[in-house]
Amino acid sequence: MKFKLPKTSAVLVKGKSFKLADVDPSSEKPFAHHPHNREDATPRLLKLRQRLFELQEVLYAEHKRSLLLVFQAMDTGGKDGAIGNLLTGVNPAGVSVASFKAPSPEELSHDFLWRIHAQTPKRGHIGVFNRSHYEDVLVTRVHEIIDDQTAEQRFEDINNFESLLTRNGTRILKFFLHISKEEQAARLQARLDDPAKNWKFDPNDLKERARWDDYQAVYEDALRHCSPAHAPWFVIPANQKWARDLAIAEIVVATLEDMNPQSPKATFDVKAQVIEQ
Amino acid sequence: MKFKLPKTSAVLVKGKSFKLADVDPSSEKPFAHHPHNREDATPRLLKLRQRLFELQEVLYAEHKRSLLLVFQAMDTGGKDGAIGNLLTGVNPAGVSVASFKAPSPEELSHDFLWRIHAQTPKRGHIGVFNRSHYEDVLVTRVHEIIDDQTAEQRFEDINNFESLLTRNGTRILKFFLHISKEEQAARLQARLDDPAKNWKFDPNDLKERARWDDYQAVYEDALRHCSPAHAPWFVIPANQKWARDLAIAEIVVATLEDMNPQSPKATFDVKAQVIEQ
Repeated sequence: MKFKLPKTSAVLVKGKSFKLADVDPSSEKPFAHHPHNREDATPRLLKLRQRLFELQEVLYAEHKRSLLLVFQAMDTGGKDGAIGNLLTGVNPAGVSVASFKAPSPEELSHDFLWRIHAQTPKRGHIGVFNRSHYEDVLVTRVHEIIDDQTAEQRFEDINNFESLLTRNGTRILKFFLHISKEEQAARLQARLDDPAKNWKFDPNDLKERARWDDYQAVYEDALRHCSPAHAPWFVIPANQKWARDLAIAEIVVATLEDMNPQSPKATFDVKAQVIEQ
Repeated sequence: MKFKLPKTSAVLVKGKSFKLADVDPSSEKPFAHHPHNREDATPRLLKLRQRLFELQEVLYAEHKRSLLLVFQAMDTGGKDGAIGNLLTGVNPAGVSVASFKAPSPEELSHDFLWRIHAQTPKRGHIGVFNRSHYEDVLVTRVHEIIDDQTAEQRFEDINNFESLLTRNGTRILKFFLHISKEEQAARLQARLDDPAKNWKFDPNDLKERARWDDYQAVYEDALRHCSPAHAPWFVIPANQKWARDLAIAEIVVATLEDMNPQSPKATFDVKAQVIEQ
């Protein structure tokens, strides 16, 4: 079975007029022609995951191109969950997940793309960035580590870098998991209420939460400047986890279908081979 | 449910008297007390995989220790299949698979463990080596790139290196997938007979096959010298893929049970946290 990308409430960012506030984080309509509830979504998701397993096997065998998935979100936005739910079931031998934390002194003594470039996926692999080079035009702007002029230059650097990857066989998809401020409050509270989840809570997250509007503004600016056709941003309504996961799976599988990887052919004379016992 | 390691036909290598020829590659008794057929093995394997998924989640959350799985085998021995079958279903965000091919000029201009060290698993991760530093005492010996004295030194280097990793929180398990020469012939022939598998065949593999006995001898020597209690080699009968996969899953899951990872506790005052709306 081949999958094409259906009409979706996930929003493809196109151009400078894009407004984050226009996307409803609570949308439960990942796709216009599908039933809009979790129960009916499950069988669809299972089929998509089976197809993702198959496509990744061929991408790996082909060994020519790669797929890079970038995940960004506000704290509690669901990056870990979305990545796990998408890729659990795919052969980890063909997947590399890079999590970018605050840069080390060594990393800071290079340009901001140096550590990112080192983690781009090999041919045949699906690479995942849990946070990414976009942090360098997000948290750095909110905390005024860089000014607007530097941000503009970095947008250009990022677009050039993503062009380089694309020209060398890496297909790029970028997902902003879009939650509401109320949903974040509920998820933070859940981490406090459940002792088993306490370790996921970081008191510093509350300071960042206080800058919510600033973050939304710099996200919107980054998405507007860095969503060319070859490396698009998708804004994924993410208050509902099942709708989020379904939207991402649809986009990833449809993209791999479009890449249409092929198993390699033999480059030697098959009939001439004799296996001695 | 917790799993303990049952009595198994997989052989733990202990000391200098170990003989590879004593292990039957066709054994279909991965565990003495289990039914010895594929059908009855399947439900057991599914339970082990579910438990592996759970244990890896906690290992990742704990973020203190790691597990390193080393896979070696003769060509067609089933490394890719065994790794895929063990780890498909585990969250790839906590798994890193490194495949070691012939070293690059850059890698060759360093000591033989340099490129290996760079790929050891992070805290919280399961790391997998598809081929490993053991190639440097296997293929290099068969092709007389190193002499016996250098091999002896490398055994010591390897033991010291694996001690270092162990002392720093990495648990090490090493698997030699043991197939017979007849089974290799059948698997190579299958790659020639099925056009979809042609690309997996490499005519150079036939040259290595001609050195079968030499390879068995250097494998035996490496296993004898480098199987301390903290980084043991297991010889896995691997002619039967289902028995191979079951034996590996039993050993890996029992080892993780023994490691007994724990979710971290909160390091802040939970009740003092207030989430502003």
